[in-house]
Amino acid sequence: MTTQFKSISGSVVAPKGFQASGVFCDIKKIGTGKGSDKGKKRDLALIVSEVPCTTAGMFTTNQICAAPVKVCVARMKTTARAIVVNSGNANACTGKQGMKDALEMAAFTEKSLGLPTGSVLVGSTGRIGVTMPMDNVRTGIVDAAVELSGADASAEHAVEAIMTSDTRPKRIAVELKLGGKTVRIGGMCKGAGMIHPGMSQTGKRPAAMPLHATMLCFITTDAAVEKKTLQRCLTEAVALSFNRTTVDGDMSTNDTVLVLANGLAGNKVLAGGAKLPLSPDLKKFQAALNHVCLELAKMIVRDGEGVTRFVTVRVAGAKNMKHADAAARCVANSELVKTSWLGGDPNWGRIIDAIGYSDALVVEDKVDIGYSAPGGKKILWSLKRGQPTKATFKELCAATAPKEFDLHIRLNLGEGEAIMYSSDLTEEYVEYNKGDVSDPTTLGG
Amino acid sequence: MTTQFKSISGSVVAPKGFQASGVFCDIKKIGTGKGSDKGKKRDLALIVSEVPCTTAGMFTTNQICAAPVKVCVARMKTTARAIVVNSGNANACTGKQGMKDALEMAAFTEKSLGLPTGSVLVGSTGRIGVTMPMDNVRTGIVDAAVELSGADASAEHAVEAIMTSDTRPKRIAVELKLGGKTVRIGGMCKGAGMIHPGMSQTGKRPAAMPLHATMLCFITTDAAVEKKTLQRCLTEAVALSFNRTTVDGDMSTNDTVLVLANGLAGNKVLAGGAKLPLSPDLKKFQAALNHVCLELAKMIVRDGEGVTRFVTVRVAGAKNMKHADAAARCVANSELVKTSWLGGDPNWGRIIDAIGYSDALVVEDKVDIGYSAPGGKKILWSLKRGQPTKATFKELCAATAPKEFDLHIRLNLGEGEAIMYSSDLTEEYVEYNKGDVSDPTTLGG
Repeated sequence: MTTQFKSISGSVVAPKGFQASGVFCDIKKIGTGKGSDKGKKRDLALIVSEVPCTTAGMFTTNQICAAPVKVCVARMKTTARAIVVNSGNANACTGKQGMKDALEMAAFTEKSLGLPTGSVLVGSTGRIGVTMPMDNVRTGIVDAAVELSGADASAEHAVEAIMTSDTRPKRIAVELKLGGKTVRIGGMCKGAGMIHPGMSQTGKRPAAMPLHATMLCFITTDAAVEKKTLQRCLTEAVALSFNRTTVDGDMSTNDTVLVLANGLAGNKVLAGGAKLPLSPDLKKFQAALNHVCLELAKMIVRDGEGVTRFVTVRVAGAKNMKHADAAARCVANSELVKTSWLGGDPNWGRIIDAIGYSDALVVEDKVDIGYSAPGGKKILWSLKRGQPTKATFKELCAATAPKEFDLHIRLNLGEGEAIMYSSDLTEEYVEYNKGDVSDPTTLGG
Repeated sequence: MTTQFKSISGSVVAPKGFQASGVFCDIKKIGTGKGSDKGKKRDLALIVSEVPCTTAGMFTTNQICAAPVKVCVARMKTTARAIVVNSGNANACTGKQGMKDALEMAAFTEKSLGLPTGSVLVGSTGRIGVTMPMDNVRTGIVDAAVELSGADASAEHAVEAIMTSDTRPKRIAVELKLGGKTVRIGGMCKGAGMIHPGMSQTGKRPAAMPLHATMLCFITTDAAVEKKTLQRCLTEAVALSFNRTTVDGDMSTNDTVLVLANGLAGNKVLAGGAKLPLSPDLKKFQAALNHVCLELAKMIVRDGEGVTRFVTVRVAGAKNMKHADAAARCVANSELVKTSWLGGDPNWGRIIDAIGYSDALVVEDKVDIGYSAPGGKKILWSLKRGQPTKATFKELCAATAPKEFDLHIRLNLGEGEAIMYSSDLTEEYVEYNKGDVSDPTTLGG
């Protein structure tokens, strides 16, 4: 299928009827300013639709789940008008006060913007176990409400406000045609460490769900989409993107993906729920949403803490999909494999070791391991049927020297396939994450 | 129970009737010497009993399993006289040639020492995917046979010969009385990276077995023990020691623990298989073997690649043992938790996050997290029932500042308990393991 969408600017304000803003309100209480102080990193964002939106969401399946996640899960039943989100404090492990604060963030936003009760969703990322500085948050919401606009610059402020250890902003927007109408999808996300999401619609872990940052992602669209259909589309898009990434194998308490669809594009409502086959328009929308989620997910891995290499692990020929997933995750999370990538070392011994201890069925003399350029068809095999090929060490090193490459693993036992987007493990990751005992603000963070 | 054994010197030659040796035979083919060249790290060891031994073994459950492991598994049916073991080459992923070479190592040792066919066990550790330099190995075996002796120094040579990235030798010996007879148990082991053993008697993974170096361990005893009973004792000892350790979460293709029991102590044969209750003598032997395995296992974690901190993770109050094990392993293997330990940071947020994504049932407002000195009864709680205690950051930092401490996690949901012996994750680990593309000998290693 040829791509039926094009990239545009504007991120979450690209779709009709959306405004955004991002301000500084000193949520970390570093005490050096207030409001939209230009000298400080913004830490509170608003995304607002001028009309009610159909919503869909995917949430961490971590059993330790932050208050804002619980608020969003509960509010998925109704339409929404806005999202308020802060960085610097995850509002996780904060007990009853945390739930009160998450609800107050939403209620204060509703009041400030004159929106109906229950129409605001909440997101938080940052330190765990510290109660929210609500006076700062309220000041931030007031300031952010004033700064709301549909200008690209406002969306940039919002993106900045959700960054934590991210070194660059992550956003995207695409445009497609549905029945002659122009439809847009915009998205922004954050995440660099504690990245191994395993999200579901309810925050409950489905049986046999592959397990495995804080990552937050907010998607806006002016498409008209029926609710169940929107959730179906998001579930597929997340399964193929965020839930297939890992930086450090640690799944966060706050992982959240939200979509707001306000229908202002005026297309014929996309409907059909989970029914197959999808209508041609729904197929196009799904493809565009998949693209938005996958590109954002890859941006997270590429900007992972200390990351210098981005590796796509492609497992094929597993007994079934579950086996393929198990093998791909073990390789993508192996400390020894990830450190070898840092050195650009085509160390197939560590790779076959990792699949061997995975829950996937593996037969040594059937395993193929090779490398290609990202998405490339030409694979340089290092191992075929369990035995080293004639590829030289120099050739293999050349294949793993680039900053991005694909690792191909064929188990030759069945039809199961899985992809994981992973990174190397570097001294910088360790340096960044080692505790700083001179700084009590790291406690729980 | 008071300890009914005492520490002695001599490692694997402490029990009656055992001899050992270790020589240099250039298995890595660095080409700078031969035989017991004093300037080079020894790389081939022999352990020999003057009479046939009852054997027991535990082997990696990695599906990619090295040839020497397969040879040992097959030879567990009969008595044994000796073990030949090399470092520098794992003889893993070496196909039919690898199996031929492992058998030849055993056969050449049998010939050199005048032992019956099938009476020699084999161990290997080192690079994966490179066939064994058999001329060097044969030279080594001839030299090692000449150097065999019951002197402590010979056992030290044997320990040195099995080290790879180990920075120090790991060995132990204990003495106990069984029915008036003096019985001794000696052991040596190696391992520093690719440490997360999950071993079983057959190398097959029992259903629901917790999964999770190359580690090699060779234990000798002059106790007379009936075979099934010896295997029962070893299975318990490994379950409580090596299988409860992790350095990097990567399970090796070569993990092996072997016991040779030659009966020369003249005690009444320990028997009874798996029957409970154990006889008083068997209880004493089991306790001593458990001690030998646990102390060796802890030496491996303490000497793990780049390790600066040794942490005992104690989970209690889980729904059941399986839940306790799942929670303990997720914490013990979390990159974020392990990096926080490097900084001496009492970061309970990362700990509760890790148990939250484990397969253990966790209820946030029931979780307690605290610290004590190793084995200490006085616990400083940082979290009680999901909420931070009044312990100050300074107090908590003091608890996690020592090189060794215990982490206590209480889930307060049942009676399940589990322990994991873990370490911090350091820049040195990453530096040590990152590939060196100037050195093709790292391929597969």
